[in-house]
Amino acid sequence: MAKQEDDFKKVISHAKEYGYVFQSSEIYDGLSAVYDYAQNGAELKKNIREYWWRAMVQLNDNIVGLDAAIFMHPTTWKASGHVDAFSDPLIDNKDSKKRYRADVLVEDYVAKIEGKIEKEVKKATKRFGEAFDKEQFLSTNQRVVDYQEKATTILKRLGKSLENEDLADVKKLIEELEIACPMSGSKNWTDVKQFNLMFGTKLGASTETAMDLYLRPETAQGIFVNFLNVQKTSRMKIPFGIAQTGKAFRNEIVARQFIFRMREFEQMEMQFFIKPGSQKEWYEHWKAHRLRWHLSLGMGEDNYRFHDHEKLAHYADAAADIEFRFPFGFKELEGIHSRTDFDLSKHQEFSGKKLQYFDTDENKNYVPYVVETSIGLDRMFLAVFSNSLQEEELENGTTRTVLKLPAVLAPTKAAVFPLVKKDGLPELAHEIIDDLKWDFNVLYDQKDAVGRRYRRQDANGTPFCITVDHQSLEDKTVTIRHRDTMEQQRVAISELKAIIHKEVDMKSWLMKMK
Amino acid sequence: MAKQEDDFKKVISHAKEYGYVFQSSEIYDGLSAVYDYAQNGAELKKNIREYWWRAMVQLNDNIVGLDAAIFMHPTTWKASGHVDAFSDPLIDNKDSKKRYRADVLVEDYVAKIEGKIEKEVKKATKRFGEAFDKEQFLSTNQRVVDYQEKATTILKRLGKSLENEDLADVKKLIEELEIACPMSGSKNWTDVKQFNLMFGTKLGASTETAMDLYLRPETAQGIFVNFLNVQKTSRMKIPFGIAQTGKAFRNEIVARQFIFRMREFEQMEMQFFIKPGSQKEWYEHWKAHRLRWHLSLGMGEDNYRFHDHEKLAHYADAAADIEFRFPFGFKELEGIHSRTDFDLSKHQEFSGKKLQYFDTDENKNYVPYVVETSIGLDRMFLAVFSNSLQEEELENGTTRTVLKLPAVLAPTKAAVFPLVKKDGLPELAHEIIDDLKWDFNVLYDQKDAVGRRYRRQDANGTPFCITVDHQSLEDKTVTIRHRDTMEQQRVAISELKAIIHKEVDMKSWLMKMK
Repeated sequence: MAKQEDDFKKVISHAKEYGYVFQSSEIYDGLSAVYDYAQNGAELKKNIREYWWRAMVQLNDNIVGLDAAIFMHPTTWKASGHVDAFSDPLIDNKDSKKRYRADVLVEDYVAKIEGKIEKEVKKATKRFGEAFDKEQFLSTNQRVVDYQEKATTILKRLGKSLENEDLADVKKLIEELEIACPMSGSKNWTDVKQFNLMFGTKLGASTETAMDLYLRPETAQGIFVNFLNVQKTSRMKIPFGIAQTGKAFRNEIVARQFIFRMREFEQMEMQFFIKPGSQKEWYEHWKAHRLRWHLSLGMGEDNYRFHDHEKLAHYADAAADIEFRFPFGFKELEGIHSRTDFDLSKHQEFSGKKLQYFDTDENKNYVPYVVETSIGLDRMFLAVFSNSLQEEELENGTTRTVLKLPAVLAPTKAAVFPLVKKDGLPELAHEIIDDLKWDFNVLYDQKDAVGRRYRRQDANGTPFCITVDHQSLEDKTVTIRHRDTMEQQRVAISELKAIIHKEVDMKSWLMKMK
Repeated sequence: MAKQEDDFKKVISHAKEYGYVFQSSEIYDGLSAVYDYAQNGAELKKNIREYWWRAMVQLNDNIVGLDAAIFMHPTTWKASGHVDAFSDPLIDNKDSKKRYRADVLVEDYVAKIEGKIEKEVKKATKRFGEAFDKEQFLSTNQRVVDYQEKATTILKRLGKSLENEDLADVKKLIEELEIACPMSGSKNWTDVKQFNLMFGTKLGASTETAMDLYLRPETAQGIFVNFLNVQKTSRMKIPFGIAQTGKAFRNEIVARQFIFRMREFEQMEMQFFIKPGSQKEWYEHWKAHRLRWHLSLGMGEDNYRFHDHEKLAHYADAAADIEFRFPFGFKELEGIHSRTDFDLSKHQEFSGKKLQYFDTDENKNYVPYVVETSIGLDRMFLAVFSNSLQEEELENGTTRTVLKLPAVLAPTKAAVFPLVKKDGLPELAHEIIDDLKWDFNVLYDQKDAVGRRYRRQDANGTPFCITVDHQSLEDKTVTIRHRDTMEQQRVAISELKAIIHKEVDMKSWLMKMK
């Protein structure tokens, strides 16, 4: 655990030091759970977004794009259920004035019980090794059973109360368990209240005409409300999909873990519209397809696993996560959800407009079913970035910090160095850049010894370093060094473009999905 | 004027019919001044954004990117002046309950006077042609002078009152001029009040800790607050720039003209940090450079003009617009502003953090000056789209509607048609698509006669149509048709990629900027 925390801290500080991610508004002491992508981060994020877009939209001739606004008509969120149900039960401590998620307080209490069970079991196991004492064994066993029973009872009651929206009972539970405020130790609690996670704002100036708006908490609804217009103008036939990337906002009470859970974040979602009854097949199709996309980046098969949901959201008849091994363990990276016709039906109901598809094969109208793939761009960024950051022991006993980003996603594809700052080497380096820059992001660096410049680009994630030396002036060759292997080759300047293209072009990476 | 309005209506309806722009939340009867980009619009917008990014970031080795959050610390907007000064003077009519911009009411009144002057002059000019009557001439002349004087006096007083924030006098002016509500004819007005154009929201759940946030009204401030972190981690030396694209929000009272002025819009901004004293030179540099970018798209030199500002914003020492000929006349498309050290100095003052650059050549610290280029992505979209939409009379007397988008920006690069739906032609068409799709957005269409399919792709803006016929099966050749010239060529399937690449690659378009 300490190792994990330490690794994660390294990720965060490397992200800052090398211009990937900054705390938002840092000069004003930051804004909680909001981050800015710096010069390298902006490019990495852009490349991930593009890699997703090409795989989803360009390569599938039955998927089209969309770019819906963040502002939507407020009825959208009534139809989707977000106004009524997208909330957390909160409770305030009257003494400390601190606010908590009531369910989390209870769950933390249960976690402590579970900790006790673990301790008992450990103790017992150890004792088994020493001596067998039937009395002690039975009493341990009894305590474990009691604890387990207690934990289960509490969780069952919590689940039931939340389901029935019996918030008074949630408070009663907290009081019965004598849960104290972790800050102050006080047990002086307010009532539990539902707090909606959507950010609100007002559109229009006149008090009579001002409209209560929400910042969208998910991009998916922008696809649903546009479904019929897109289908008609694109002349798409079912099955077909609509893909979109864009910002969404959630007023999270407990936002944490760097860019893993932010209040402002970006989603990459695709809604696939299908014939009712075919959802199982498409759900499996998209699970497999999306995993192939992840694996195409070569970040290690062992770092991914599926987690099938047992408890389903109200709109879903099947759901799975693709989990990734983050520095803090396996966590959700992407969700694949079989959403049935829930959303389109609700929008039909609330708008009074038919949202049906006329199936010419079946000669009938129906509301399509939907299978969704939904991935957080920021989470994907964190997955790529944290997985790529490595410390390598070199043969000479030193270590190097290297950011082994998949070359297709690297912000800068090549750095060009003149060996020395004179004799026309800088000029030749700039000439090379002036040619390469039409194809790639490249940078120039003439400061410090070449070895240090290599290390800097390793840490920066740049796949290639190109060094111009005196021989270059004579025979138009340079040294190209590969980030991952540290191998160096002498090649003609005229070959550089092809060498870099081969390693960084999206096309060849995407072909690995096939 | 009627012609202009008619043309503009055609632009809007074409944008909807061909999947470029939809009214936001249309099924809920829309959201005023908010639009969604549909399947083709999403691609066009994305391509414009990328064309800008490559020209600004990839091609300039002293410009780096940034992707700052929409949410920023609220003090940012105090420092920038937006909390105090980013507002419109509004007045309500008590009878109609309608709200107006007070300055616009007065300006409309003045416009009417100016209309009267025009009428008098027209009348007089006509009379000159008929007979010369000294009496009449002098009296006309006197009326024109009187009107002009009146108009000038009113505008001066309005300007002064707004400058001094004497809103009571603005109301008095409205009353003295006996301006009536255009809706109701009533002269029963409330006081004039300043209304801030920023959208507000609240961050955090606890009432004690909730923070009043604004949705950023411009992206520029995200660059300023990150300036020093970017400069240090990118090791950039002055002069250098930071570029960013992203959403901004303004609660416009009078939002109109389709996507020209929206409440949610996207900016593409670059802040160039320079040595104080060099601003004139860089200002001219960026004016010329940005115009070259526009001209590289080949939309006609005559459609652009510079408009130098006489009245400058509080932060600027020089400012110019690049205006474009929109369907409703020449209007601002992009702004180039010499912002001095206003923003960085203000952030220094409000944050208490030094935002200075150490100039190793001069061996001293200073707050850099800034020259900004700022373009609305949505406006650029409208410029490209409206300029490309053309109706052509063909030799056979019919007309065709063709969307002559610069090929580099077109959403779909090629459509592939089987001549008939049988004999293996669809299969070959799909084979071609399966090869081309790795490089371009391509689509398949087998419906209707080929002539109609051509027209559909003309209206869609697709630069190439490729038709597969029976000969294709024998000799592996196809017909490729060019959208703009309607010329058709018989070419080998193996040549297709090169032909399309030549016309659509960003590289060759950007090279026209040189």
